[in-house]
Amino acid sequence: MATPVTSLLELGMALRSRELSALEHVTTALERLAADTHNAVIVLDHDRAVAEAAALDDELARGGWRGPLHGVAVGVKDVIDVEGLPTRAGSNVLADAPPAAADSPTVARLREAGAVIVGKLHTHEFALGPTGDVAATGPALNPLDPSRITGGSSSGSAAAIAAGHLPLTLGTDTGASVRTPAAMCGVVGLKPAFGHLSTEGTFPLSETFDHVGLLTADVHSASVAWDILARPDGTGGGIQLPGVAGVRVGIPVDEYWRAADPVIDKTVAAAVERLQAAGAHIVEVRTPMIDELAAVYSPIVVGEAWATHGKWLAERPEAYQTGTRERLMPFADQSAREYIGALRTRRRLVPQLRAAVSDVDVLVLPTTRLRPTPIGVGEVEMGGTTVPVRPALLALTLPFNITGWAAASVPAAASDGGLPVGVQVVGVKLEERGVLRVAGALANG
Amino acid sequence: MATPVTSLLELGMALRSRELSALEHVTTALERLAADTHNAVIVLDHDRAVAEAAALDDELARGGWRGPLHGVAVGVKDVIDVEGLPTRAGSNVLADAPPAAADSPTVARLREAGAVIVGKLHTHEFALGPTGDVAATGPALNPLDPSRITGGSSSGSAAAIAAGHLPLTLGTDTGASVRTPAAMCGVVGLKPAFGHLSTEGTFPLSETFDHVGLLTADVHSASVAWDILARPDGTGGGIQLPGVAGVRVGIPVDEYWRAADPVIDKTVAAAVERLQAAGAHIVEVRTPMIDELAAVYSPIVVGEAWATHGKWLAERPEAYQTGTRERLMPFADQSAREYIGALRTRRRLVPQLRAAVSDVDVLVLPTTRLRPTPIGVGEVEMGGTTVPVRPALLALTLPFNITGWAAASVPAAASDGGLPVGVQVVGVKLEERGVLRVAGALANG
Repeated sequence: MATPVTSLLELGMALRSRELSALEHVTTALERLAADTHNAVIVLDHDRAVAEAAALDDELARGGWRGPLHGVAVGVKDVIDVEGLPTRAGSNVLADAPPAAADSPTVARLREAGAVIVGKLHTHEFALGPTGDVAATGPALNPLDPSRITGGSSSGSAAAIAAGHLPLTLGTDTGASVRTPAAMCGVVGLKPAFGHLSTEGTFPLSETFDHVGLLTADVHSASVAWDILARPDGTGGGIQLPGVAGVRVGIPVDEYWRAADPVIDKTVAAAVERLQAAGAHIVEVRTPMIDELAAVYSPIVVGEAWATHGKWLAERPEAYQTGTRERLMPFADQSAREYIGALRTRRRLVPQLRAAVSDVDVLVLPTTRLRPTPIGVGEVEMGGTTVPVRPALLALTLPFNITGWAAASVPAAASDGGLPVGVQVVGVKLEERGVLRVAGALANG
Repeated sequence: MATPVTSLLELGMALRSRELSALEHVTTALERLAADTHNAVIVLDHDRAVAEAAALDDELARGGWRGPLHGVAVGVKDVIDVEGLPTRAGSNVLADAPPAAADSPTVARLREAGAVIVGKLHTHEFALGPTGDVAATGPALNPLDPSRITGGSSSGSAAAIAAGHLPLTLGTDTGASVRTPAAMCGVVGLKPAFGHLSTEGTFPLSETFDHVGLLTADVHSASVAWDILARPDGTGGGIQLPGVAGVRVGIPVDEYWRAADPVIDKTVAAAVERLQAAGAHIVEVRTPMIDELAAVYSPIVVGEAWATHGKWLAERPEAYQTGTRERLMPFADQSAREYIGALRTRRRLVPQLRAAVSDVDVLVLPTTRLRPTPIGVGEVEMGGTTVPVRPALLALTLPFNITGWAAASVPAAASDGGLPVGVQVVGVKLEERGVLRVAGALANG
């Protein structure tokens, strides 16, 4: 099997110089995905991908270059529409879904920029879970340790990057679902600010909190991809990643933000020291409203999910995975009053959170409270305490779906030499490019 | 009692030339309000108003002129905060409300522009009703016929204009509440587009549909006031009302939009003929989704109202007026699913409605299906049919709270010589100034 090329920088240079053809690159990606052992792949769009790669090679041979994604293989989480492929969202409920009639807007933008969509990737059922081990197609396996979870719900999108199959994948993030699998699999995940990428053509989990995002092997690749997606004219170009001198970095110090795994806190602290050494100003910040704010998450997300799934759950409960059904059922009787109350609490507290961190440009904190846990395990022991897995993989990311701020997870080598740690960078005054700039400065390989 | 001056044009000229002092004008308004026989007044801010009027006279004498509202008396619906006065929202539930700590943003903007806030005006209890006859302070009486309703919920704001007490009042409009009382009382009401005036400092009925609006005696006065409120620098200035030649006017012809009172349809048709004679292009439009779209109104409004009132209704049901309690109680058990479903239907159908009317600049249609009905009457006989009053006063206005488009009601002399008819102008391509331009062209005195 051919060596992976996962850096969009290297790949873009090789493709543009025609040292590597799009057809070779895409064929390699298709072969790797076909031979994948991490259950990351749902379906390949083999023939179309090959034909498009060949056409992009012709285009380049005639002098037409679409930018740094020209000829680049891209995979898409199976909740996002890709023309001609069904969107099954990891569920038997959608086993008979027809082929999507059109690309979702982000997929369409990538195609215009020369990307080749090679197929659909594994997702936690209906994107409702941060573990990636509940799906009609079985659990996704972490390429760093196949006995452990990938995190979710963009499980296949993270695994395909970590396994070296692809340089860029699309995911979605409603509470954790790009950043947490990125953290678990040791890759980079970017959740742009709310609304910056359209959720049209994406199977909804929660219209209030759904974000489309992207995953790459390194921060520079994420910047290249974001530069394409963020620019309405579709033209890309190299992006500068200058230093972080003078950037004000907030470290939230309330109990809420503490990891369960002490190695995570230690590793994040070391990353913060690197930022400080690079000239960033480090500021401790306090967020006394965070517990009350975080509590609005479930009533809103699961309320909205119930509004989508209630009818199907009544008609075909057996089509759902047990874990999904158990998560949804308690919200069957949710009142409009409770849901509206949660929306109001959010409207009241987000400005308070913003005010509490108004002195900083970004926040830096762990992405998750745990590193990858064994597949199918609901609780783990950590320092003599029992830690439930699901909330540990959601708690530190979901606040920024509630606020809608841009946030990225970047891997850092763990202080104990074990599985890597996700460090989260959250934009307060800065948006995606600024978040990626800070992420680039704290990444240590 | 002094003769009223209700035109902001005439009043502004008289005040600026010092032919009339602000103190004289404000004192007259206070006297008229104190002697009001339509139950339009909740409380007067007499001493502050007199002091401010005198100070504005001094300011003008020194050459300081704040614009066309300099020294103009303004009344405010008692759901909108005015510093130092309680906001009681027409309810015994808020009988002990403390004085508001600050002006709502629109009140503050008016004061900066030289307006003198003279007091708070009658509202239907909690703004939850289009009739104006359900309130802790009793029903408001229509100055055109005191045996009939003013419409609501901005009942006092419309009555105070119609009675000649004031040239400008503020109201709120969640489904009808500026336009319907304007129509009932023969005055002009403007509901700006959603979000164009802040609802901060306003007792909420529905965060999804609440709008702050204004009422005046004539269209030109509304334009003068809107010009102040819409301009961030607070400076006003005369506004031109050119013709409507070339403006595309849509007439919705589906059954939904038909009035119950045939005089209303006849009068609106005559107004449309005047627009056509003035050079407007008249186009029939069809809106097949309107019944389904209109049906989202109650689940959203009353669901949100229940989220506010549920606790109080459980604790102090007797503090509510019977009509208000009866309107709220059916929503006690509303599910989040139903509420979220209504929001989703709205998101799906509003673009369809916009597409259906995309060929026109404005819509012109009746404001209400009935003219003012007797106070306290829930149904009327009309052409051999029983017509429930409440929906007849909501149905034609609430669609534009759902869409959030700017809309105004302007009075037209009825074809039968009876009580005037409200003609509604709704902005599709045009916003507030364009709506008022068309409204000015179709008004016939």
